[in-house]
Amino acid sequence: MTVESDQASIGRTAGETAEETAQRIRALIDRRLAGFLDEHAAPVADPEVATAYRLLRRFILGGGKRVRPLLCYWGWRGAGGEDCEQIISAGSALELCHAGLLIHDDIMDSSDLRRGRPTMHRSLAGLHPGMAARSFGQAAAILLGTLTLAWSDELLSGSGVEPSRLKAARVLFDRLRTEVIAGQYLDILAQVRDLPTVEQALTVVRYKTAKYTVERPLQIGGALAGADPSLLDVYSRFGIPLGEAFQLRDDVLGMFGDPAETGKPVLDDLREGKHTILIAHALQHASPSQALHLRTWHGNAELTEEQAAALRQIVIDTGALAHVEIMIDERAREALHVLRSAAIDAEAKAGLAMLADGLIHRTR
Amino acid sequence: MTVESDQASIGRTAGETAEETAQRIRALIDRRLAGFLDEHAAPVADPEVATAYRLLRRFILGGGKRVRPLLCYWGWRGAGGEDCEQIISAGSALELCHAGLLIHDDIMDSSDLRRGRPTMHRSLAGLHPGMAARSFGQAAAILLGTLTLAWSDELLSGSGVEPSRLKAARVLFDRLRTEVIAGQYLDILAQVRDLPTVEQALTVVRYKTAKYTVERPLQIGGALAGADPSLLDVYSRFGIPLGEAFQLRDDVLGMFGDPAETGKPVLDDLREGKHTILIAHALQHASPSQALHLRTWHGNAELTEEQAAALRQIVIDTGALAHVEIMIDERAREALHVLRSAAIDAEAKAGLAMLADGLIHRTR
Repeated sequence: MTVESDQASIGRTAGETAEETAQRIRALIDRRLAGFLDEHAAPVADPEVATAYRLLRRFILGGGKRVRPLLCYWGWRGAGGEDCEQIISAGSALELCHAGLLIHDDIMDSSDLRRGRPTMHRSLAGLHPGMAARSFGQAAAILLGTLTLAWSDELLSGSGVEPSRLKAARVLFDRLRTEVIAGQYLDILAQVRDLPTVEQALTVVRYKTAKYTVERPLQIGGALAGADPSLLDVYSRFGIPLGEAFQLRDDVLGMFGDPAETGKPVLDDLREGKHTILIAHALQHASPSQALHLRTWHGNAELTEEQAAALRQIVIDTGALAHVEIMIDERAREALHVLRSAAIDAEAKAGLAMLADGLIHRTR
Repeated sequence: MTVESDQASIGRTAGETAEETAQRIRALIDRRLAGFLDEHAAPVADPEVATAYRLLRRFILGGGKRVRPLLCYWGWRGAGGEDCEQIISAGSALELCHAGLLIHDDIMDSSDLRRGRPTMHRSLAGLHPGMAARSFGQAAAILLGTLTLAWSDELLSGSGVEPSRLKAARVLFDRLRTEVIAGQYLDILAQVRDLPTVEQALTVVRYKTAKYTVERPLQIGGALAGADPSLLDVYSRFGIPLGEAFQLRDDVLGMFGDPAETGKPVLDDLREGKHTILIAHALQHASPSQALHLRTWHGNAELTEEQAAALRQIVIDTGALAHVEIMIDERAREALHVLRSAAIDAEAKAGLAMLADGLIHRTR
C-alpha cells in the first residue's frame, strides 16, 4: 500500500457529520491496532504463548469505546492537524496503554468480568485448571499487561510524527502515565483507609480519570499537531471538568446502571467498596443507622441484592445521588463553556461537543 | 552545571584499568538514577504516596550489579563512542527497566527477599497490617513496577542521543522487552508443566537472560553509537553464549551458593521449583528412586534443609552439576573466542573480557 492510498483511505468525505467522523476514526483505530498486532507475533514458538497472544488480541480488539484515541484525534484536529495515519497510530498507542493498565487493574481489583467477558487473568487462569491456576493467571496477566504497555510506547514512538512534535507529545504521555499511576495508587490506598472526604475522592477522580482519560489525550493530540501552550491550556480547562463528569457518571452507573447495558455485574462496585464521591457524600449526610448500614455493607463481599437495594436507597435519601447529578451538570456546563469560546475550528468543536455529550449522558 | 563540566566529570583518566572504568561507570549510573528520581517527585501530595516513592527509590538505588548498563556502555565504547552523559542516561534506562521487571517478577514468584532485603510487595504490604495487607502490597507493587518501566522509557527517549541512532536503539529496546516477557512467560509455563527437557530449559535461558541481560544491552549501546550491522552481529555472537553461561552460573549458585554471599535464602530456588537446566539434566539421568525424590521435593514449599541436601547430592551424583559446569565453560570459551577476533578497540575488549569473567566466575 502506498502512502497516497493510505492517506486517501482515511480521509474524510465532504459533509461528514461529527458522529460519522467518530465512527470512521474508531474503525481506523481498530484497523491500526489489528495491523500492529499482526506485525507482533510472539518471538518464541510455543503453542501456549501463541494462545496467550490470541487472548490478548481478543481483549484489545474486543470492546471499549475508544474514548482516548477519539479525544487525541479531536485534539489534533483542533490544533489544525489533517487526517492521516500518524494520528491514528498515536491514538492507537493510547488505546494500547489503556488496555495494559486495565489488565493490571483487573488483577488488583480481583475482577472477574470486563466488558461483559472474563478478565485477562481469569481467562489465563482457565488455561491451567488446578491449584496453581489462580497464581498462573495473575502472573501471566502481569506479563501481558506489561507487554501491552511496552507496545503502546513502541507504537507512539514509531507513529511517524515529526520528531520535535513527537518529543513535546512524549512529555505529556510521560505525565499521563505518572499521573494515572498516582491516581490508581490513591485508589488502592482508599480501600485500606477509612472514609475519604468528598475532597479526597475528587483528587482520585482527577488523577485516575480526568487527566488520564480526557485532558492528556486531548493535549497529546494537540502537541502532535504543534499546538501552542494557550491551546493546550484550553484543552486542560475543557478536559478536567469533562473528565470529572465522566467519572461521576461512571460511579452513578456502577450503582444504579443496568448491568445488561454496562456489561458489569451491578454488585461489583458495591462489593469492592469503591470509594466514590457518591458514597463519600452519603456517609457525610447519613443518620447513625444509615451510616452503620453503609459501613457494614459497602465493600462487603457477601453483599446481597437486598442489602444493595438498601444502600442505593440511602444514597438517594441522603441526597448524594442528587448532589452528584448536580456536580455532573456543573462540570458539563463548565466544559462546554470553555469549548464554546475556544479558538479551534468548527468541526473539531462539534466533534468534541458530541463526544462530551456522549460521555456525560451515556447509559453504559 | 555546564555541558563542559559534565563531560569532564565523567571522562576517564589516562591509564585507567578496565576495573576502574567499571567502577566509575557504576558510580555515574547511580548518580544519574538518583538525579532522575530527584526530578520525579510524586504528582500528588499524599504522605503514603511519598512513602511508596521512598521505598521505590531505595529499591532502585540499593543494590544490583549494574550489569546491563555496563554492557550498554561497553557496547557503545566498542562502536567508537566516547564517554558522555548520553550513554550514562541510556544505561540508566536499562537499569530502570530491570528494576521494574524485578518488582513484578517478585510478585509472580511470591518472593520475600531480593538483594538481602524485603521485596517491594512485601515492604508495601508491611505498611498496612491486617487482612488486606497482602493484596495491598501486590497491587501497590504492580503499580510501582509499571511506573518504573514507564520511567525507563522516559529516560531512554530523553537521553539526548542523536535521533536516528536513538531510533535504531529503540527498535532493539522494543525487542528486548518483548523477548524478556516471552522468556518470563515460558518460565511461568514451566512451573505448571511437567519436566522440561534440557532443550526447553535452554530456550527459557536464552530469552529470559541471554538476550535480555547481555545481547540486547550490548547491541543497544552499539546502536546508540551508530554501530553497523556486522558489529551488532558480533555482539550477538558474543552475548548469547555469555548470557547463557551467566544464567547457568546463577542456577548453580541458587542451588550450591552461599546465602551470605548471594543475599538469597538458599532454599528459595528449590522450594519455588525453578526449572533449571541443572534439574532437567538430573531428572534425565536419575535412577527411579532419585527421580522420585526430585519430583517429590523439587518445588515443594515444605522442603527442609535435609531434603535440600539430598537434592543437591542427586544433582551431583547424576552428573548434572559437572555437565552444567562444562556447559558454562564451553559457552565462556565461545564468547571469548568471538571477542578476541572482534574488530573493536583494545580498551572495550579488555572491559568486556573482564566483565565476562566476572559474570561467569562470580560467587554471588
